Amino acid sequence: MSRGPDPHDLADALLPGVARRPGPSTRTRVREVAGGVARDRRDDLATEEPLEIRVQAGEARRTVAITMRTPGADFELAAGFLHGEGLASAGEIVSIAYCTDEDVAPEARYNTVTVRLRGPLPDLPSLERHFVTSSACGVCGTASLDALRDRCAPLPPGDGLRVSPDLLYGLPHRLRQAQGVFGKTGGLHAAGLFTPDGGLVALREDVGRHNALDKLVGWALMNGLPPLGGHILVVSGRSSYEIMQKALGAGIAIVCAVSAPSSLAVDLAREFGMTLVGFLREERFNIYSGAERVTA
Amino acid sequence: MSRGPDPHDLADALLPGVARRPGPSTRTRVREVAGGVARDRRDDLATEEPLEIRVQAGEARRTVAITMRTPGADFELAAGFLHGEGLASAGEIVSIAYCTDEDVAPEARYNTVTVRLRGPLPDLPSLERHFVTSSACGVCGTASLDALRDRCAPLPPGDGLRVSPDLLYGLPHRLRQAQGVFGKTGGLHAAGLFTPDGGLVALREDVGRHNALDKLVGWALMNGLPPLGGHILVVSGRSSYEIMQKALGAGIAIVCAVSAPSSLAVDLAREFGMTLVGFLREERFNIYSGAERVTA
Repeated sequence: MSRGPDPHDLADALLPGVARRPGPSTRTRVREVAGGVARDRRDDLATEEPLEIRVQAGEARRTVAITMRTPGADFELAAGFLHGEGLASAGEIVSIAYCTDEDVAPEARYNTVTVRLRGPLPDLPSLERHFVTSSACGVCGTASLDALRDRCAPLPPGDGLRVSPDLLYGLPHRLRQAQGVFGKTGGLHAAGLFTPDGGLVALREDVGRHNALDKLVGWALMNGLPPLGGHILVVSGRSSYEIMQKALGAGIAIVCAVSAPSSLAVDLAREFGMTLVGFLREERFNIYSGAERVTA
Repeated sequence: MSRGPDPHDLADALLPGVARRPGPSTRTRVREVAGGVARDRRDDLATEEPLEIRVQAGEARRTVAITMRTPGADFELAAGFLHGEGLASAGEIVSIAYCTDEDVAPEARYNTVTVRLRGPLPDLPSLERHFVTSSACGVCGTASLDALRDRCAPLPPGDGLRVSPDLLYGLPHRLRQAQGVFGKTGGLHAAGLFTPDGGLVALREDVGRHNALDKLVGWALMNGLPPLGGHILVVSGRSSYEIMQKALGAGIAIVCAVSAPSSLAVDLAREFGMTLVGFLREERFNIYSGAERVTA
C-alpha cells in the first residue's frame, strides 16, 4: 500500500539554500476547554500552504493553478491535477521538479512545482474549469456535463466489475485506520484506492478533498496504473461534481463516499456509467447510479 | 432569524421565458442497501449548479468567478463574494440581478448573476485570490498573510467581546437544528451568525463551506449590518485560510468550527487578532487564538 513520500521528492536533496520544507502537520499550542476547565497543551494541525503549479514547454512557461494544499506528494498532486483537467497526460510529462529558480524566494521553493511537458503549452480555454463561459450559452450543470463529454468517454457498463455489500461496508474503516496525518490532526480529507477484493492500494490525504484525489490519481499515473477501471475509490466526506469528474478522468468505475452526493455528482455518474455509493457507514449505504456493479 | 429567500429574488418575477429555476434540493431515486437488503426509494439531494458572477460598470462587463453552489440566496452569494475578495463594498453595488440577456440560454438564466457597480470595474490583479504570484517571490502562507494585510486591519483585541464556554457548547446544535436543507439531504455545509448571548441571527447553507459564508456575509451587507465584530460565526466542518479570510473581511471577531482548523487558519487568526475555536462538540473545544474573548 502506498502512502509514503513521493519518490520524485528525492530530487529535493539538490535544492540550494536553507529553505524550510513544510511537513504535512504543524505543531502548535492550544487551550483545551472541557467541562468548563481550561488547560494549555501542544497539538498538531494539518498544514495548509499554497502550491503553485507551473507548466513549461521549451522556454515557454505559465502558471496553471494555485491551490491551498497539505504539503507532501506535491509532484503527484501536480500530475494528477493536470491529468484531471485534461491539460497533460502522463506520457506528455518529461519531468516534475520544485522550482529552484533564483527568482523564487527560499520559503516559497517547496510551494512551486514546475511540470515540464513534451508538447506545446496547453490552451488557455481549458483552464476555465470546463465551464461553458461564452455569453452565448451561460453556465449550467447540463452544459458542464456536455463539455466533459468532449474529453471523457462513458465507462463501459459491461465491464464485469462486481462488489458485494459486505466488502463495501468495511472500506471506510480501513481508509480511516490508514490515515496517518488524520490520526495526528483530526482534520484531513482522504482518498483511497481499493482493489475489487478490498485491498488498499494507495491512500492520500489533504486539507482539500479534490487535492487528495489529485494526489492519488497522480500517484497512479506516475506508476503507470491508469485507467483505474478495475478499482474502487473511497473518499471521506461528500461527493461533488469535481470529485466525480476527476474520478471519471482516471477511469474509476466505482466511487464510494462516506457522506452525501450532490445532485450534479449523481447526474454525472448516471451520464457516464459510473457507480456512485453514498452514506457508506457501518452496515448501510445508498446507490445513486450504476447499481449493477453491486451484488445486492 | 433570517433563512428565508433573498428578498431581491422578487425581481425574478420579471424574468421572461419558462426557465426552470433550480431549488436547493433535488428529488431522485436511490437504492438503499442495509444489512444486505436492498430497496428502492425516493431521496433528496443537495442541488449543485454553477453560478457565474459578473460585474458591470457602465457598459463594461466581465465575469469574475464561476463557483459550484447550491441555488438560493444567489444575490447574497454574489455580494458576499465580491466583498470577501475586496472587489466591491456594499456601497459600490447599485443593483444585482439574474441575467435576462437574450444571449443567455433559458436554463442558464438562474445561474448567472450580474452585479452593477457604481465605480469602475475592479482590477484584474485582485482576482488572483490574493496570492503573490509574481515569479519574484513565489507563493507561501506568509506571503498570503502579507497580501491580506494590505486590505484588512487586525481586529481590536480590546473590543470587550466575551463569551462563556457554556454558551459556545450549545451553538453547533442550534446551527444543525436550524439547517432546513441539511435535514432533507444530509449533505450541506452551514454558516451561522450568532449574537454574543447565543441568538441565531442568520443561517445559510451550501454544498461549499465558502459559499455558505459568502451568502451569510452578503445577507449582512445587504441589510447594512457589517462590520460584524460583535457577532460569533459558527461553521460546520473545518476552518481553512479561505474561511478565516472571509470572516476577517466581514469584521467577525470570533469564529467557531465543529471540526479542525488548518495551520494557516490558525496563523491568520493570530496575525489578525481573531478568536478561533475548533472541535466544538458537546462539552468541549480548543481555542487556537484570541483566548481572551472566552471566559474560561
